[in-house]
Amino acid sequence: MPELRHDPIQKRWVIISTERGRRPDDFFVDNTTPSDGFCPFCEGSEGKTPPEIFAFRPQGSPRDTPGWQVRVVPNKFPALRIEGELNRHAHGIYDAMNGIGAHEVILETPQHDVHLADTPFAQLELVLRAYRDRLRDLLNDRRFKYVMIFRNYGSAAGATLAHPHSQLIATPVTPKTVALELQSAMEHYVVKERCLFCDIIRAEMEEGTRVIAASEQFVVLAPYASRFPFEIFLAPRRHRHDFAAITDEEIRSLAVIFRTTLQRIKAALKDPPYNFLIHTTPNTRSTDRTTYWQTIEHDFHWHIEILPRLTRVAGFEWGAGFYINPTAPEEAAQFLREVEL
Amino acid sequence: MPELRHDPIQKRWVIISTERGRRPDDFFVDNTTPSDGFCPFCEGSEGKTPPEIFAFRPQGSPRDTPGWQVRVVPNKFPALRIEGELNRHAHGIYDAMNGIGAHEVILETPQHDVHLADTPFAQLELVLRAYRDRLRDLLNDRRFKYVMIFRNYGSAAGATLAHPHSQLIATPVTPKTVALELQSAMEHYVVKERCLFCDIIRAEMEEGTRVIAASEQFVVLAPYASRFPFEIFLAPRRHRHDFAAITDEEIRSLAVIFRTTLQRIKAALKDPPYNFLIHTTPNTRSTDRTTYWQTIEHDFHWHIEILPRLTRVAGFEWGAGFYINPTAPEEAAQFLREVEL
Repeated sequence: MPELRHDPIQKRWVIISTERGRRPDDFFVDNTTPSDGFCPFCEGSEGKTPPEIFAFRPQGSPRDTPGWQVRVVPNKFPALRIEGELNRHAHGIYDAMNGIGAHEVILETPQHDVHLADTPFAQLELVLRAYRDRLRDLLNDRRFKYVMIFRNYGSAAGATLAHPHSQLIATPVTPKTVALELQSAMEHYVVKERCLFCDIIRAEMEEGTRVIAASEQFVVLAPYASRFPFEIFLAPRRHRHDFAAITDEEIRSLAVIFRTTLQRIKAALKDPPYNFLIHTTPNTRSTDRTTYWQTIEHDFHWHIEILPRLTRVAGFEWGAGFYINPTAPEEAAQFLREVEL
Repeated sequence: MPELRHDPIQKRWVIISTERGRRPDDFFVDNTTPSDGFCPFCEGSEGKTPPEIFAFRPQGSPRDTPGWQVRVVPNKFPALRIEGELNRHAHGIYDAMNGIGAHEVILETPQHDVHLADTPFAQLELVLRAYRDRLRDLLNDRRFKYVMIFRNYGSAAGATLAHPHSQLIATPVTPKTVALELQSAMEHYVVKERCLFCDIIRAEMEEGTRVIAASEQFVVLAPYASRFPFEIFLAPRRHRHDFAAITDEEIRSLAVIFRTTLQRIKAALKDPPYNFLIHTTPNTRSTDRTTYWQTIEHDFHWHIEILPRLTRVAGFEWGAGFYINPTAPEEAAQFLREVEL
């Protein structure tokens, strides 16, 4: 059973995934090259994944058979386990609990070789609907405080299989970066009774220099204090705190600007490795009644972070939590705005 | 002039190093391969670095000439600039200041091909004394709130030149991870009137399973909630909050256990890339009178973090600040303890 352990110095939970148990020698095998010829995520290989949790597939077509458009399966090597009790406990002066959670893989298309930036809008809509529908379902499980949806593209970004896929991990604690965003948003709201993110979006639209694209419903920005070159922030222009509440119509609009943004990255930066992730509200149905919950509907704002992986993170960044970004966000925005698609 | 910008959502300062200004095309040149044949850090190339700030060299031998044992020079491409005023200002709803700071390179040996784990103890002592002496000097500059000393070894850990060297960056804000450690330490002290780190060291010595090595003066641990496989924590067993106050005698003892630890990593993990960094007290002479300063002498405890770079950090880690570690710290400690040197 994996274990969640708390670091009392950095106030951080860590997943010790002992079942994957990697001993020193295991680190010298290159795990990033997919085995040639066979892909467990391709259409026709449905039997090679754990049984399907969810799919968009023709009505009446049975589970775990070909014909699907988007398919969600448990991760075969999950970081957290779905079955069991949390069993929160002390370990001497430390704190721990069982590594309970969900770890799912969203197979974005039956085709092996397609790039997410090049899929038809309708296909990307299905992917975004799968995110939303899995989120809705998992938020019914009160053991889970948060569901993080993310994508690793390219081996330098942590992808181990080439077939287009994203992942989600549901955790029994609110992740540290999200907890910090909730805290910042609440503090801002307490003073101003305005959403911090809405304020940022309004200021950025006025200044303009860091805006990459904007539609009626969404905006794409290079954040003022970007950690990484070409870092991107995508959010709804209207106040929305919960990705699980997104409508099909909003998804249609999101798919257009999101795919265009991925195309800009692909064209401007020569198809770089990247990560993206969705930050949305934590599970307010869980039993954790912190002070955030009182204002979260008004102060939080869901958004997507896209992080191209162009630079290596070195000692100073790890040690200080302090990033050195060699590309000004204004230059990045201009470049991405003007790239020919 | 580089700029420090504050992210109001993540409450994080970022260095926007526009003078290094990297445009998209710059990211596709491999900067990690040192130019063959010529090394600006080797003995005899003193004219190829900016003028020396500090050196251990024979008495009477002039600056910027051969004969040195350890040499400290400004980074030729500094992330921060030493000259100027901070000029703290608002930028619309955001906060910024000039990128003022020090960025120095510690050349650990005149020899190009020696591994830090294989240098004589006396040489490593000189390196540690150079760290301490530069720290002492820079803490006189009240613009600087913190001095981070770190080492990147191997290109995957961010090193761009092979010649053995470490770096230091002095910053006008306390880095986020250090601020968090200070906060945790202070909270612990307020309740218990004990140092959090001393408590951890005592508990670890009693439990034993995560102890890699211990001498009379120092202890080397695999942290209970290690983020990364084979992560290492090295600290004085007696309460010491300030690395700048380390004595020559303590340095002699530190050099022995530190070099042995680097040898364990090299032997057990086949000479992996790694980062190490020193966490010490911030500059209490600076003007930042936060509440920490009242107890820092009693509650903080300097330590060295060593982070072998064996796994790739992927989307979940970036997005959540939540790490998945596939190797239990107890296994890592046992392996490092038992490796043949």
